[in-house]
Formats: sequence, C-alpha cells, structure tokens
Amino acid sequence: MIQSITKPTLVIDKAKCLNNIKRMSDKAKRSAVKFRPHFKTHQSAEIGNWFKDFGVKSITVSSVSMAKYFSQNGWNDITIAFPVNILEINEINELAWTGRDPSLQINLLVISRETLTFLNKNLKSKTGIFIKINTGYNRTGIVAEDTDELDKITDDLRNSKMMIFKGFLTHAGHTYNAQSKEEVIEIHEETKQQLLDLKKRYISVFEKIEISVGDTPSCSIATDFTDLDEIRPGNFIYYDVMQYNIGSCKMDNIAAAVACPIVGKDRSKNEIFIYGGAIHLSTEYLLFEEGLKHYGLIVRFNGNKRTGPIPNTYVARLSQEHGIIKTTPEHFDSFNVGDIIGVLPVHSCLTANLMRGNYMISDE
Amino acid sequence: MIQSITKPTLVIDKAKCLNNIKRMSDKAKRSAVKFRPHFKTHQSAEIGNWFKDFGVKSITVSSVSMAKYFSQNGWNDITIAFPVNILEINEINELAWTGRDPSLQINLLVISRETLTFLNKNLKSKTGIFIKINTGYNRTGIVAEDTDELDKITDDLRNSKMMIFKGFLTHAGHTYNAQSKEEVIEIHEETKQQLLDLKKRYISVFEKIEISVGDTPSCSIATDFTDLDEIRPGNFIYYDVMQYNIGSCKMDNIAAAVACPIVGKDRSKNEIFIYGGAIHLSTEYLLFEEGLKHYGLIVRFNGNKRTGPIPNTYVARLSQEHGIIKTTPEHFDSFNVGDIIGVLPVHSCLTANLMRGNYMISDE
Repeated sequence: MIQSITKPTLVIDKAKCLNNIKRMSDKAKRSAVKFRPHFKTHQSAEIGNWFKDFGVKSITVSSVSMAKYFSQNGWNDITIAFPVNILEINEINELAWTGRDPSLQINLLVISRETLTFLNKNLKSKTGIFIKINTGYNRTGIVAEDTDELDKITDDLRNSKMMIFKGFLTHAGHTYNAQSKEEVIEIHEETKQQLLDLKKRYISVFEKIEISVGDTPSCSIATDFTDLDEIRPGNFIYYDVMQYNIGSCKMDNIAAAVACPIVGKDRSKNEIFIYGGAIHLSTEYLLFEEGLKHYGLIVRFNGNKRTGPIPNTYVARLSQEHGIIKTTPEHFDSFNVGDIIGVLPVHSCLTANLMRGNYMISDE
Repeated sequence: MIQSITKPTLVIDKAKCLNNIKRMSDKAKRSAVKFRPHFKTHQSAEIGNWFKDFGVKSITVSSVSMAKYFSQNGWNDITIAFPVNILEINEINELAWTGRDPSLQINLLVISRETLTFLNKNLKSKTGIFIKINTGYNRTGIVAEDTDELDKITDDLRNSKMMIFKGFLTHAGHTYNAQSKEEVIEIHEETKQQLLDLKKRYISVFEKIEISVGDTPSCSIATDFTDLDEIRPGNFIYYDVMQYNIGSCKMDNIAAAVACPIVGKDRSKNEIFIYGGAIHLSTEYLLFEEGLKHYGLIVRFNGNKRTGPIPNTYVARLSQEHGIIKTTPEHFDSFNVGDIIGVLPVHSCLTANLMRGNYMISDE
C-alpha cells in the first residue's frame, strides 16, 4: 500500500514492468534474436523472476558480485558485461566452476590481450569470452577498425582451451546523448554494421560468432534486429525521464517512482520540500529547454494508480536527504505537508541502486 | 590490508579521521561550545565510537532511521537535523520515549506552525524542538527577518507541554559555493549575527536558547565560536576534494578514498579504466579552472600509506560501474591492469553513503 509509506520508497509498478518486458521480448522473438536482459537495473531476484514467464533463460550483469547473486537465484547463463577484473579471478573461477553445474554458462568480457593471457593461465573451467568493441561510445573496448589487434586477440582465443570465443559485444552508450529517434537509429545502424563486418571477417575461423548490442535507446526505438544475434537492454524494465526525452518510451511506460513525504512548503517561492534527496534519487539531472536543471518530475498516487506528471513541477535542488520541488501558484495548494508524492527518476538505474533496500511492488 | 582488496572499497584512514576529530573538538573546547558532530557522513556505529574519546556525548543525524540506529548503539542525545516528517510520528514517539530511558534527549527540527500543531497533539514524550532558520542558503527554514512568524511559533512552543524549545539552528550550506576562505568567514559572521539577534529577541521569554550552526566550511575555517552554543559539522571527519577546494582542509586531511582495481588502459587517449563508477563514487563532480569536469583525484597506496594525488590525473567520466581516468603520457606507464588505485571523492558524504556496505579501516 502506497498509503502506508512513511519514508522515501521506490515504488515499482509491476503491470508497467511486465508490459515493458513483453514489448521487448516480443520484438526479440519477431527478429529471432536472443533476449539477454541486463539485470543491473533492478538487481532483484524477485523482479528477475518476472522474466522467466517470457521464456528468458540468459541474463547480463555488470559485476562478478551480481553474477554470484543471480547464480544463487536460479540463473545459469550469465554474461558479465564489464571488462574482466583480474583481481577477482578466484570469484570468477568459483562462479564458472562447471564441476558444480555442467549446464553453467558464464561469459566474460575482454578488452586487451594482457587480460586474455592472464585468463588463459588462470581460468579453471571453460568460460565464454566476448570481445568488447568500441563502436563510437568511446568508453572502453577495441575499436572495430583495429583489425591488427583483433587478429591477435582472436588468434589467442583460437589457441586457448579454457576460453571459448563467443563473439563481439558492444554498448552503444552514445545513443543516450542522441537528440532524436532518427539519431538513435543512425547510431544503431552504424554499430550493427561494424559488428557485422567483424563477424564476416572471422566467421571462417570460428564456427559460431554472436554479435550482441545492449543500449536501451536502440533496443527500444529500432524495430528489427534480424542481423543481430542478441540484445541486452536493461534500463527498459523501468525506463525513466531520460529515456522519455530520448524517445525510448512513453511517459506511461516509466515503471519506477520514488514515493516521498512532503515535509514543508514555501508559498513565496512556490517550493515544496520533500524527504527524498541525493541518497535516494541520485544527483543525475537533465536540462529543460531553457537550460534549467531538474532531478525528476512529479506524479501523484491515487490508491495504486499513478497520475501526472504535474505540469511545470520538478525537483529543482537536492541535498543529502532534502529535495526541493519547484511548482506554480496554480498547483501549490494541491501539495500538503504529510502527502506522499512520487518522483519519476532521471536515471532509474542509479535510483534503483540507491533504493535497493527500500522498495515496494505495486499492482494496479 | 589494502593489498587484499579485489573490488571497489572505501578505505577510511583512521589516523587522519582522529586528527580531523581532534582539531574540531579542540576548537570547540577552546570556544566553550558544544560539539555535536553530524553522523550522516559516516553512518557507522564503529566510527561513531571514535568520537567518545574526545568527550562527545551529543550527535546530529539527518533521519529518524539514522537516529534509531545510533540510539541502538549507545547514543542518547540526538538532534534529527531534518524538518519533521509527520508521517514518521510513531517512529519518533518510539525513539523519544523517556519511559525507556529518562536521560534520553531527542531534538526535532521544525520549519512551520502546521507541523508544530501536529506535534503538539501527537508527541508522547518531552521532546526538544529547534526552529530551523534560513540564514541565506535558501534550502528550508524560516528567514530570520520573519519575526511575525517566529513570534507565533515561539508562542506555540511556550504553551506546549511536550515540546521543549531548544533554540535556533541553521545550516549555512551556501558556504559550499564560496570562492575563498574570506567569503566563508563573511557568510559565517552574517549567519551568526542573525542567530544572535534572534537569541536576544526571545531570551526574555525562554530561559535558555541555544544557537547552533553546522556547515563544515565555516566550522573548519572560523577559529572562534565563542558567541555560539553549538557546532554540528559532519563532513570534516573525512573531508573531500570539494572541501579542499573551498579551503576547509589540506589535501592530507582527506581521510576517505575509494580503492578501485584497474581493468584496462588506452595509450592513444592516456586513459585508464577502473572498476569503480557512479554507484561507488556518486555522480557529484567539480570543475577544474578550464571548465573540465572531474569526479575525483587519483592517489596510490603503498602498504597502508597513501601518496598523491597524481598531477593532472583525474576521473573524467563515469557510468554505472566504469570509471575513466585521464592522465598524461608521463604517468601512463605507472598504471597497470590489476593495480589498486585510490579515488579521493568529490563529496565524501554521498560516496560514503553508497559504500556503506563495503569499507575498511586502515591504520597507518
């Protein structure tokens, strides 16, 4: 019951989540690609289980710790989509130990020969390896044009017993900065082409090469994935205001809101004070057209139903536990001390990570 | 042992913390003001205990949950420096129940008559009340000049049985934006004067009125607090790069660093990739003089000793688990995959909150 909330609580709308999962799952099925959702967004065994009804058997995570958690919760085909941290080799070997579960499939990500050499010496079970490709986001990975380096890496992989080459994986995170759906599609097509060229180059050496993309904007906006082998979106289960702005979702698809109590008001400035700050929402912000920062939009709860967002009303400032909402004279009187309002987050992954210990599932 | 770290871990340097506590405690003693440190920065019973050797008996927290935690860990004089959230009245009454512990002193913060009226009806034990004054930060609180409102509030308090008026409290958070030590002192003096004027105005009605300030820049830079009754700094136990920039501390006083494994390098861009991202450091950033963003400075560990920060080397970009460090050709080769480096945080309160489950104490 949202009405029983007394402090900042992440409210997850189950019906919206299931709708978001279904849409993505249907699209993957139509294109006959593997749907390997990223679980870093929710980090919850309970929510992870919702995917099982859609036939999902393979997942993505972003750390060895997260892989361990989901492995203990019934998942045995896991890609750790973060460059291998060699200091965690013992945890990796423990996790990937096929002596415990022969059906276990753990895939790792490599971005250098140095790490490959280390893995070749230290892996104790057969482990899948994806090469991380930088297709333009410029975070990490080998640029697709660097075929010299890729030739060497694929040679290393061909000659290894424990490392099973799975394919090329990218995160086209530059779609997050796209200004239109068209730009997202453009980035997606460029990304796809780079991965397809690599597949073509190495397919004669490796029987099976998968190409895998992951960003929520591309996966949400593109309609056809036929040329790909796998999609790994994560954020789409909740979406958020950033994704709405990009065009990845409708406002009504946003499935997570932080319920916050109102603790004060200032009529002279049309400000509403909430218990809900940087340690609940995160300090990620977006800019309105006029250049004004905001840390989230404001909705109301009516029973378990959500209405809003309320026009011209947003989280304007944050400190550790304080949130300051700016509104207009028209809406000011509708806010009362002791009310619970909802904040639609700017970036739900960071918000959900902060609120892990404090969430509830609402069923409309 | 820092050398045994395999994933992002907050390393707390105990000697530096004790040094920071001692300096602040000595200063409070010299001015004969109460030192009521804010525990929201560390949120740890273990670290909280370090203050006891300096004679600290009173603390500040920023939520009812935090008050409950420290109350269960031996603290019984607690100010909850956040405007009362009336939805938590049951938790407040439970916490402040003097039937359990007659020596218990819980102080609440009010910013409106509306909340006072509610408390007057619903409080079940005698509870201290501070009025939150807005001295220029413009977050929450009653502006010091609004004596009409303050007359009414103090009248309400005088006529209440359960609410014991304690005094006027402010957080001059605008010192965080100060460009020089002189500006911090200027804000501090203005703040103090406003509180002194209020004390003077109401002292004939109330036998005892305390005035209380809390921001770490003022408490660090000002040398004399004689006119005040209480200081409540929190961040000073760890400090951070933001406080260093303001002039609140020396680089060597920063007592918290996030130890992160290096997972990759890119020579062409002088970039180092670490396991350590937004969910470890927080997305708070600072600007260098040239306008470049950074999310932390880089140090090394040598045994439990820390060296650095390394010149022209900083966290330039963050995503959920990734940190991208920019360095120079001169330093590039000193970074190796598998090394542990340290990130001095921009804002240690947010970083420590994120890393609560994952910290270690180092003793030089």
